[in-house]
Amino acid sequence: MHLHLTSVKYIGVAGLYDYGPPGSSLQANIIAEWRKHFIIEEHMLELDTTIMTPAPVFETSGHVARFADWMVKDTKTGDVLRADHLVKNVLEARLAGDKEARGMAAAPLTEDKKKKKKAAKSAAVKLADEVVTEYEAILAQLDNYSGPELGELCRKHNLRNPDTDNEVGEPQLFNLMFASSIGPTGQHPGYLRPETAQGHFLNFSRLLEFNNGRVPFASAQIGRSFRNEISPRAGLLRVREFTMAEIEHYVDPEDKSHERFSEVRDVKLTLLDRHVQEAGKSTTVEMTVGEAVDKGIIANETLGYFVARIYQFLLKIGINPQRLRFRQHMANEMAHYATDCWDAEIHNSTGWTECVGCADRAAYDLTVHTNKTGHPLVVRQALKEPIVTQKEIPEWNKKALGKTYKQDAGIIQKIVESMDQQELVKLKGELAQGKTVITSSDGAKQWELTPEVLTVELKTLKQSIREYTPNVIEPSFGLGRILYTLLEHSFWSREQDVERGVLSLPPVVAPTKVLIVPLSAREEFDPLVKEVSSKLRKAGVFSRVDDSNTSIGKRYARNDELGTPFGVTLDFASVQNRTMTLRERDTMDQRIGSIDDVIAVVTDLVFGNITWEEACERLPAYDGVQAIE
Amino acid sequence: MHLHLTSVKYIGVAGLYDYGPPGSSLQANIIAEWRKHFIIEEHMLELDTTIMTPAPVFETSGHVARFADWMVKDTKTGDVLRADHLVKNVLEARLAGDKEARGMAAAPLTEDKKKKKKAAKSAAVKLADEVVTEYEAILAQLDNYSGPELGELCRKHNLRNPDTDNEVGEPQLFNLMFASSIGPTGQHPGYLRPETAQGHFLNFSRLLEFNNGRVPFASAQIGRSFRNEISPRAGLLRVREFTMAEIEHYVDPEDKSHERFSEVRDVKLTLLDRHVQEAGKSTTVEMTVGEAVDKGIIANETLGYFVARIYQFLLKIGINPQRLRFRQHMANEMAHYATDCWDAEIHNSTGWTECVGCADRAAYDLTVHTNKTGHPLVVRQALKEPIVTQKEIPEWNKKALGKTYKQDAGIIQKIVESMDQQELVKLKGELAQGKTVITSSDGAKQWELTPEVLTVELKTLKQSIREYTPNVIEPSFGLGRILYTLLEHSFWSREQDVERGVLSLPPVVAPTKVLIVPLSAREEFDPLVKEVSSKLRKAGVFSRVDDSNTSIGKRYARNDELGTPFGVTLDFASVQNRTMTLRERDTMDQRIGSIDDVIAVVTDLVFGNITWEEACERLPAYDGVQAIE
Repeated sequence: MHLHLTSVKYIGVAGLYDYGPPGSSLQANIIAEWRKHFIIEEHMLELDTTIMTPAPVFETSGHVARFADWMVKDTKTGDVLRADHLVKNVLEARLAGDKEARGMAAAPLTEDKKKKKKAAKSAAVKLADEVVTEYEAILAQLDNYSGPELGELCRKHNLRNPDTDNEVGEPQLFNLMFASSIGPTGQHPGYLRPETAQGHFLNFSRLLEFNNGRVPFASAQIGRSFRNEISPRAGLLRVREFTMAEIEHYVDPEDKSHERFSEVRDVKLTLLDRHVQEAGKSTTVEMTVGEAVDKGIIANETLGYFVARIYQFLLKIGINPQRLRFRQHMANEMAHYATDCWDAEIHNSTGWTECVGCADRAAYDLTVHTNKTGHPLVVRQALKEPIVTQKEIPEWNKKALGKTYKQDAGIIQKIVESMDQQELVKLKGELAQGKTVITSSDGAKQWELTPEVLTVELKTLKQSIREYTPNVIEPSFGLGRILYTLLEHSFWSREQDVERGVLSLPPVVAPTKVLIVPLSAREEFDPLVKEVSSKLRKAGVFSRVDDSNTSIGKRYARNDELGTPFGVTLDFASVQNRTMTLRERDTMDQRIGSIDDVIAVVTDLVFGNITWEEACERLPAYDGVQAIE
Repeated sequence: MHLHLTSVKYIGVAGLYDYGPPGSSLQANIIAEWRKHFIIEEHMLELDTTIMTPAPVFETSGHVARFADWMVKDTKTGDVLRADHLVKNVLEARLAGDKEARGMAAAPLTEDKKKKKKAAKSAAVKLADEVVTEYEAILAQLDNYSGPELGELCRKHNLRNPDTDNEVGEPQLFNLMFASSIGPTGQHPGYLRPETAQGHFLNFSRLLEFNNGRVPFASAQIGRSFRNEISPRAGLLRVREFTMAEIEHYVDPEDKSHERFSEVRDVKLTLLDRHVQEAGKSTTVEMTVGEAVDKGIIANETLGYFVARIYQFLLKIGINPQRLRFRQHMANEMAHYATDCWDAEIHNSTGWTECVGCADRAAYDLTVHTNKTGHPLVVRQALKEPIVTQKEIPEWNKKALGKTYKQDAGIIQKIVESMDQQELVKLKGELAQGKTVITSSDGAKQWELTPEVLTVELKTLKQSIREYTPNVIEPSFGLGRILYTLLEHSFWSREQDVERGVLSLPPVVAPTKVLIVPLSAREEFDPLVKEVSSKLRKAGVFSRVDDSNTSIGKRYARNDELGTPFGVTLDFASVQNRTMTLRERDTMDQRIGSIDDVIAVVTDLVFGNITWEEACERLPAYDGVQAIE
């Protein structure tokens, strides 16, 4: 694998991973493809905002109060566990034990023992049928429980810390943001952002201006975020520092159609909707995005459009569609303001894992920041047809008002101007009779008003601008999780030798596209290696040379594990005849041709212009023997 | 400008900047060019390591003890100032006042008042000639003073807080790392990295292995770092969160030559060496890198190679070479372990600013981590010729040793085996006489040894592996500072209208390469806009459409300020004749040709294949009138 725990030689701090050279290239390639698929193709506005964020921003967004997980403490050791994970681990272990006791082949709980060493041990104990049903129902809606409900589950089902078999205490909230302090005086608390989204919202006005005041549009940001997870485990699936890619698509709340929806209408998805889950089941259905939106399963076109685009992106980088589903959030799981939310879940050795979220967050985010700062985050839209309304409007004789009422003039004006239409009509009637009396809000003072100071008139108003707070559709990608599941989906072993691993990454994301393998590091191959290397660079194809001191077969095997899709070999025939062989990673098939032909073919392969079958039509098979005179 | 203070609507926390769409594109393009210029061209190994770092890492590296600035507190208000900045601001203000008093046109201290509002006010007071000389000498070696020396300067020259005219206290160290805590228990202190370098060093063994055990090689990383600056000011020049690009080049300490040095030998640089500064002067010299290395001004070839490559990179992205110099660190300024260090300083409205550092850090970093973890970060090199040495070696009769000395046997062995060659020769002589006596280290015990238990023999040893700790050459780039100075160097105003700003960014870094300007947003232009847009995308040229409701001239002017180098206009003649005009930003020169010809020319321009002069040979001038039938 290309990833490893950071600082592991120093201290047992989990959840922080470094990416080595192939891992960081793979990540860079996934990001480049993401940028192309979303930012470039959809003309999104890219942002780069700060990670360190003054505390008031997250107070307003609600993160200080609510961005927290429920944790429980082992009553004896003080070990801290995430409450929902405890429930999941113990119940799954009991169900596995039950299956074993019933003589059914219990699917092994984990495929990789190292990754799940903390999973509860299962013992072959048969459970009553109704208990099995109850456990399964709990697991199906695990994300739906509140903290006190999780505590109740622990008591009712006697769920204990599987490591110690001790009881656990009541669930408590633990805020997941890393806190720090900005500046030398310690006056300004700050947090590391747990998502990039707030950075988008704070810049909304400038983005809107940059987009010439028009909606819909989207901002996009790729960057690091931080969550102080209670129990980071399972490789890259739950870490404390991770790279995200987030889109905030701003849309008119009265029109959530999408201009390009017709392009994705027929994309077929595997859906797990909220009703199925709330009924304690996990049955998925296959459906086109068009059908899901038409039937109201997915709330609107724009949300459906992004769900489909997420699906296309994941397939493009190599995720197995058979192990990908979209799960809708249940009522309690979703924030109260959200309209709808779908997670792209990818199956891996630990089960189904949320890798992308796609939510319609309504007007929540822009509204809370507007309220806090007094700076309105709104769209002002010129109306094609102005809206005409009639309204009673108070008109003052300012001179008479000041002269008659002196220092009270301001209060009197305020009282009248805060009246609604009905009150104004009443006032108008009284004034038409000659005078009226108004009273201060505390009832302590009264003033008599006459038509000399005040008249009320019915006026026709034309509203040519509509002002509204846009709604936000937010696709949010956890790139580390995607990368990790992609590695799992891509890895397999050769039939003839299980020790020989292959990583079938698509060329678009593979760290190295072409491996150049000279027969040996002997100087006579140097000019050819340089030529091929430079020609590939000019064609925009990233290659590496492996001239290490082992057999060609071993060098290929090593690079199969790194996911390099193509290899070219330079040998004595190359020096004499200027030929080169081309090898495909998955089939190990080899072809031969002139150096320039092979470079042209491999370039087309890397950029996805041709398939391997088409390449085979252009280059004859290599039989392992080259003529050398 | 494309950048703005983050969260400014919330709280006055300085030093945190967001990049909006053009700023973040400019940054992304600078990074892409950096990756090409360094990582790809030099086959560096790219890394992506974590920002959040367990505290022990920075304890070992020395950052916890020493990564700090000297701050002084205003004795009345408690305001905190950086000690060296206080000295600089006050002395520069006094020198400016002196110049004014002498009737010399004092160069305005600052070109942009907003940026330097905290600069000390200058009053026209004449200073004695020797005081002027003294102040100038202090300023020339400002980076050379320790904290107590800065305090002494404040007292001696009565330097006060320019904002309040109050005295300041003694300089105190303030650590610049942001602190946090990892995990729910609060047991693990962590810091946000202030540089990416430690992440490289912790991964050294894996990198070396990935490079097949060979040295020299380099690792590279682009990422965010954090410094809790005492007084962040001056736009992007001193901020609390910034993007860095760092290279750690590992080299044999006995051979710091560089394979490709001949390629840069003739690059001419402006150098300010340490001797000139230590003499209180700032006189630069022009010299080729080859000459500087030959004369020992730059310590070695590898360091010189990187200084030259830094120079080439900065010019490529548009930095003005007239405002770029390389300044050598003075003795006190440099870490004690470093061999040599040169900063690329770029001139801007605030003076000369360090934007890239290039240091030979010797074996310091790998040695401290090796000592702390016990995991040796070394290179094991197979020697072509084994080194043959002769050595006296003690040989034990273990059985007799144990039987005779029982529990003392271990101590005796330890004493003898820690002897040096001279002592062993003496021991050998005594044993040849029949016996010897050795004494415990505290002198309390003595043992008699005979040839039956111990002999000393001269043996011939062959060493076929050389083990060494590589030295590290570290080029370290502050990308925000480079971006900011680049904006200053690129910005100018049209002679005929100072309100019309132009940002002369080279195409390679410009956020948008080509602006597509339809005469209006009318539907008849849509097919052509789509065609041009799609053809440019296919050619790999990033374009934007501006169909906003203003004149073509205004749209061009707006995009001149964003640095867009080329514009193409679609009008009625385009619809009828399929022609398009091409405009160059700096000259405002316009050419005309068929849509496909213009796309071909502009693609060559963007990729730097041709100059504007060559483009003019391919496309005739546009006289402002197109024939429409």
